[in-house]
Amino acid sequence: MLLNEDERLDDIHRNGYKVFQNKKKFCFGIDAVLLSDFAKGKKNNKVLDIGTGTGIVPILMYAKNPNTTYTAFELQKESSDLAMRSVKYNQLEDKIKIVNDDIKNVENYFSHGYFDVITTNPPYMSGKSGKINDFDEKAIARHEIHLSLDDLINYSEKMLKFGGHLYMVHRPNRLAEIFYVMKKYKIEPKVIRMVCPKENSKPNIVLIDGVKGGNPSLEVLPNLIVYGEDGNYTAEVNKIHYE
Amino acid sequence: MLLNEDERLDDIHRNGYKVFQNKKKFCFGIDAVLLSDFAKGKKNNKVLDIGTGTGIVPILMYAKNPNTTYTAFELQKESSDLAMRSVKYNQLEDKIKIVNDDIKNVENYFSHGYFDVITTNPPYMSGKSGKINDFDEKAIARHEIHLSLDDLINYSEKMLKFGGHLYMVHRPNRLAEIFYVMKKYKIEPKVIRMVCPKENSKPNIVLIDGVKGGNPSLEVLPNLIVYGEDGNYTAEVNKIHYE
Repeated sequence: MLLNEDERLDDIHRNGYKVFQNKKKFCFGIDAVLLSDFAKGKKNNKVLDIGTGTGIVPILMYAKNPNTTYTAFELQKESSDLAMRSVKYNQLEDKIKIVNDDIKNVENYFSHGYFDVITTNPPYMSGKSGKINDFDEKAIARHEIHLSLDDLINYSEKMLKFGGHLYMVHRPNRLAEIFYVMKKYKIEPKVIRMVCPKENSKPNIVLIDGVKGGNPSLEVLPNLIVYGEDGNYTAEVNKIHYE
Repeated sequence: MLLNEDERLDDIHRNGYKVFQNKKKFCFGIDAVLLSDFAKGKKNNKVLDIGTGTGIVPILMYAKNPNTTYTAFELQKESSDLAMRSVKYNQLEDKIKIVNDDIKNVENYFSHGYFDVITTNPPYMSGKSGKINDFDEKAIARHEIHLSLDDLINYSEKMLKFGGHLYMVHRPNRLAEIFYVMKKYKIEPKVIRMVCPKENSKPNIVLIDGVKGGNPSLEVLPNLIVYGEDGNYTAEVNKIHYE
């Protein structure tokens, strides 16, 4: 398979899988890697990934959760094409379906309550905040231009079965809004884990597990620390990446 | 001043202040101490403490925030009497007023928006949960029997001025509900700090700072660790207690 200009094929350190990325566009980061580990899929679970970008979350998650199948929505044509090529390259065509469409059209494809698990690494900045120079692909991946937090959780609730899990990675500064909107749509926040760059630093990432129709009671896990004092990944992050 | 049966007079390690407690009833714990340090009062601020118990939060907070004044509501007669005796013992009568009444009657005493700061160390268990053998004083201090989380935050919103702070200490398992109810009443969660018994353990206490009419954006502080590996208080907790 040939690489187009500005593209690269990155080893994701699991099952020998690789993903295509465009160096000049949005490339996956540690958030996607942590989400794919935090999210759990049981046998025969049907998983929906919303805003899959280059498909990194379902590819990594499939590698860790055998006997699960994935549908991954991506609005942007170029990212979606990269995701499809990655799926094909890794011979995962019968496990992961990439859909190049707006998640707001998901009801055209699936019935309500169809999915056991939803994963999402959504744009972190609210539509109103931050500096948006142009509505290019990077901006769409980072700002809630096409999909607000409210819409994201509303569609998640519709597509999840009762008792199904919504796994999300986001920024801690949005946590109050996320909890509010989840509860508004009857997805109960059940587990969170803060991710800190270093021991004793403020978290810059939060992992959230919400359950449709769950009882109110939140478990707060110990922080996940990314870098040790030596500047290298901690043992736990190495394990998530490479084991 | 004489001690009644089962009472003790405890040194609170600040300004030489002491508080009366009943050994057989609800005695203050580290939560109240941490709340009184997390909550900030500026010059001339009027502070309301809801469910003050033996008055520990306003007494400690006054010691750390000079030029502030306090009104502390306590429904239970016996706790309220202990609080009044402690205020008198420490000669704080013109700084801290103890009101033996239900916070639901607060509008009989003060106008809406009267307070700059509200503090509260409320019952941690929701009315429905946990085992309640009898509705004694301990149960009332621990369960939402007389005051639900919704009422607590609703009354806080009424009594806070715009831009005023609600400082709360609670259990992390209630965090999603707390955020939801705060946002419902337009008190925006602005800062939280998780408190963990040990490094790398799950938090068992959370400190929350909400601002009436604040913009949505939450700051998550680094965890506060209570005990070091040697089983003693960490330097930070020692500082909060004794410095």
